[in-house]
Amino acid sequence: MVYVGFDVGGTGVQVGVVNEKGEILCKGNMVTRTDIPVADQIQAMAQCALDTIERAGFSLDEVKSLGAGIPGVVDPRTGHIAFCPNLGWHDVDFAGEMRKHIDKPVFMDNDATVAALAENVAGVSAGAHSSVFLTLGTGVGGGIVLGGKVWSGFHGVGSEIGHMVIELDGKTCNCGNRGCLERYCSATAIILAAREMVDKYPTSSILEKAEGDPMKINAKMVFDAAKEGDQLGLLLFHDFVKALAHGIVSIIHFLDPEVIALGGGVSRAGDFLLNALREKVAQLVMYKTLPYARIELAKLGPDAGIIGAAMLGL
Amino acid sequence: MVYVGFDVGGTGVQVGVVNEKGEILCKGNMVTRTDIPVADQIQAMAQCALDTIERAGFSLDEVKSLGAGIPGVVDPRTGHIAFCPNLGWHDVDFAGEMRKHIDKPVFMDNDATVAALAENVAGVSAGAHSSVFLTLGTGVGGGIVLGGKVWSGFHGVGSEIGHMVIELDGKTCNCGNRGCLERYCSATAIILAAREMVDKYPTSSILEKAEGDPMKINAKMVFDAAKEGDQLGLLLFHDFVKALAHGIVSIIHFLDPEVIALGGGVSRAGDFLLNALREKVAQLVMYKTLPYARIELAKLGPDAGIIGAAMLGL
Repeated sequence: MVYVGFDVGGTGVQVGVVNEKGEILCKGNMVTRTDIPVADQIQAMAQCALDTIERAGFSLDEVKSLGAGIPGVVDPRTGHIAFCPNLGWHDVDFAGEMRKHIDKPVFMDNDATVAALAENVAGVSAGAHSSVFLTLGTGVGGGIVLGGKVWSGFHGVGSEIGHMVIELDGKTCNCGNRGCLERYCSATAIILAAREMVDKYPTSSILEKAEGDPMKINAKMVFDAAKEGDQLGLLLFHDFVKALAHGIVSIIHFLDPEVIALGGGVSRAGDFLLNALREKVAQLVMYKTLPYARIELAKLGPDAGIIGAAMLGL
Repeated sequence: MVYVGFDVGGTGVQVGVVNEKGEILCKGNMVTRTDIPVADQIQAMAQCALDTIERAGFSLDEVKSLGAGIPGVVDPRTGHIAFCPNLGWHDVDFAGEMRKHIDKPVFMDNDATVAALAENVAGVSAGAHSSVFLTLGTGVGGGIVLGGKVWSGFHGVGSEIGHMVIELDGKTCNCGNRGCLERYCSATAIILAAREMVDKYPTSSILEKAEGDPMKINAKMVFDAAKEGDQLGLLLFHDFVKALAHGIVSIIHFLDPEVIALGGGVSRAGDFLLNALREKVAQLVMYKTLPYARIELAKLGPDAGIIGAAMLGL
């Protein structure tokens, strides 16, 4: 049997046919069109899936289930997608609509959560007792996998790791709260902090990389500057590592998973980030002589969305 | 079948014979003697348990297991009690020693964790899908129960909720870190904050309740003063509620349990605390229109330790 996974994004939808080991056998993709009714969008996704299944050489009878990773929240009371801001979806019966076209079980979860599942099936935390996945991208997303199963909480509002509070009365977050991890550990946070500080460090190589325009600064430029020993780059990098280490230490002290995996664009800083983070976490954990979570980089990259969505049906 | 639970404290050990519903059938107790070898302490506990089983009218054949809630950490690599500072225990094979006297399965966990289990079996979160228990006492302890089972993490170092960080570079904690929840939401934290502030509020009723001696201030005096509308009392109370609400919101955003229960001495402030806390949490949660964890006061009081320890064998 095979599983179909949809990675639903604001600009495009990736579809994949995946085996039970979490290996992608065939991929398809389509543009996300938010200018047509939701039912039509979902019909187009179904068609894209049917095409991909055919190209993969499977019949529909061999497909066990469909799964979708969405940039939003599923309301477990209704099974509907409650919010999906990037797609303009609100209270959408995704499974019901999808089953009009493909009569299979349909599973849904948050995109960061399915990425966590993918890593737990076929990635860096494969087979782990428990893992927590952090996506360090535009925002900070998260996913929790316990005993091989996605944990989204009782009300489906959990694993919003970016909105754990690490600083009372801290930086204002889009969610309305203050001091959320996301405001310190996302690419956006790095960029905003760099723009704010760059005036004070006129010789910083960050500004050079951004062709002298603070609005062109991205997170990679900041971390690259840090790698080269640039003073502002290092300052921003260490602030980032410090904040993330505190968030991770809270996760260790609270849940104590076997693995904590880092994904998303910011994690491409690789060992430079990982080594600094591990060192800082080691300083902050409470029981210095007992083992605690392995901190690792995610392995699956952009495919994690498809794989994890498909694996919701495992 | 019945279950024996030990609630092991720094000054005394409570023992109980408990049925599978979490009801205590008979209790015993003994003084904790830290002046004798550990093996002798454990032998004395075994004797106290045997006496209590006999008084309850049961034979040893009817006892399914023994469980102990300890103010410390169990190392899952060895099954030994790794640290138990109040008892001066370090790397103690509690189960092995206990089985020399009573040949039954022996389970151990942290005292706050077993209290969480007790509430999940027979208290405020009975039968809940998932619950997190916070003990607001001298320190802040915690316990997590998922699907009816205690969650202590993969390495056994989890549910240290008092050491989740809520303020970067915040107040210095005994654990060596800064900004831990415990430094804001324990009785100790309330007392220290009151002592620091009381000079600036010479007419505060807190000082009056403490007979004019700041060293006699306790947490109840502070919260009682707040209830009466005392300015300093209210200030300290609102700081407490704010910090605890942020910790709870992090737990909601991360784990999203069905129930969050509050126990320990500070929780005796009752509805005064509960109502203020619920109001603050409602302001801080991210998804205002979706349901989230019920926040409740624990129900079992001091018996939770015995009941939860016994229920480890369920």
